[in-house]
Amino acid sequence: MVVKVYGPDCGSGKRVIACLIEKGIEFEVVDVDLFKGENKTPEYLKLQPFGVLPVIQDGDYTLYESRAIIRYYAEKYKSQGTELLGKTIDEKGLVEQWLEVEAHNFQPPLYDLVVRLLFPSEFGITPDPKSIKENEEKLAHVLDVYEDRLSKSKYLAGDTFSLADLSHIPFIQYLMVKRMGKEYMIRDRKHVSTWWDDISNRPSWKKVLQLYPALV
Amino acid sequence: MVVKVYGPDCGSGKRVIACLIEKGIEFEVVDVDLFKGENKTPEYLKLQPFGVLPVIQDGDYTLYESRAIIRYYAEKYKSQGTELLGKTIDEKGLVEQWLEVEAHNFQPPLYDLVVRLLFPSEFGITPDPKSIKENEEKLAHVLDVYEDRLSKSKYLAGDTFSLADLSHIPFIQYLMVKRMGKEYMIRDRKHVSTWWDDISNRPSWKKVLQLYPALV
Repeated sequence: MVVKVYGPDCGSGKRVIACLIEKGIEFEVVDVDLFKGENKTPEYLKLQPFGVLPVIQDGDYTLYESRAIIRYYAEKYKSQGTELLGKTIDEKGLVEQWLEVEAHNFQPPLYDLVVRLLFPSEFGITPDPKSIKENEEKLAHVLDVYEDRLSKSKYLAGDTFSLADLSHIPFIQYLMVKRMGKEYMIRDRKHVSTWWDDISNRPSWKKVLQLYPALV
Repeated sequence: MVVKVYGPDCGSGKRVIACLIEKGIEFEVVDVDLFKGENKTPEYLKLQPFGVLPVIQDGDYTLYESRAIIRYYAEKYKSQGTELLGKTIDEKGLVEQWLEVEAHNFQPPLYDLVVRLLFPSEFGITPDPKSIKENEEKLAHVLDVYEDRLSKSKYLAGDTFSLADLSHIPFIQYLMVKRMGKEYMIRDRKHVSTWWDDISNRPSWKKVLQLYPALV
């Protein structure tokens, strides 16, 4: 069964596709253009009632929320492709912990910076220096915690690459876009920088960027 | 092994304790007073580097982020107490989806309303009518989606109570506090109201409220 992915271009859609490639799962994509409001059509809202991306369809099974989708495939195809959930229940607990940190501590300030600095006109937002400064400070604090963690552990949840690392890739990729002017936030932190080079050079992510080029 | 729970009083700590009770897991609590800054002491930051609640210690295993902790115990004691993860991989995918909806769509506007309407002085926040109105509108939209979902399905992820439902209980309990003046948001939606009566009357939640009384 080929998995159909709605919204491959957005950061969260790329999170799903990176996971499908790691697991060796065949997929096809359906473009959904946020800026044309294609995520608010009655047909799309039947799939995803909040009108956000991505959604997958796998036969007659529909699932949304990118971090739910990656957990689903990592478990459904546990013994196929890269093991992404940890080998033991205790390891899996830490994968879950760092997935939650990504969702609640890391992503919100970074998302705000990306919207304000990369897409202000698309989102109809005036860049707001106070908010940019606040979010950069929040993100810097999170990255300081990561620097400490990654000085003791090769990956966030332990010695092996997991969903917790994978889930960070799409939005750090935005942070590394030159016109964001924020690469130093990664590069000034030795262990975070090494980790980023490692996880962003995985064949899965290179394939994602080849299929859906990032901004430069 | 008795599980030690830091921060039983906060909404997220109650989420963890409700899960431990559902699973029949013995626990003891360690109070951490946010308003005295006990979550920012060097000892606490060693356990939870972001200084937020709750954390569990289970022997020499430490875990934070409430939704990671409830997933961990639901899986570790899968065959003990209430089954909270769904019986099949497809059911579990839907549990994950609605857990993510709770975290990303439901909780943020509700949390903002709770802070502004119940704890403005504790958090040093001026109640801001514009923000209250915006967050109430966001939450109303989410509850409209829930009303539709719960008209077709007894619980959010399917026919049985799961982590997805459990995860909503602590913050809806705040919404039902009389001086919030927002009970109608639940009561005006027939299926949401029936669902709330069901999930809030579970013995686990009654036990949580008996141990750590809610505001009234």
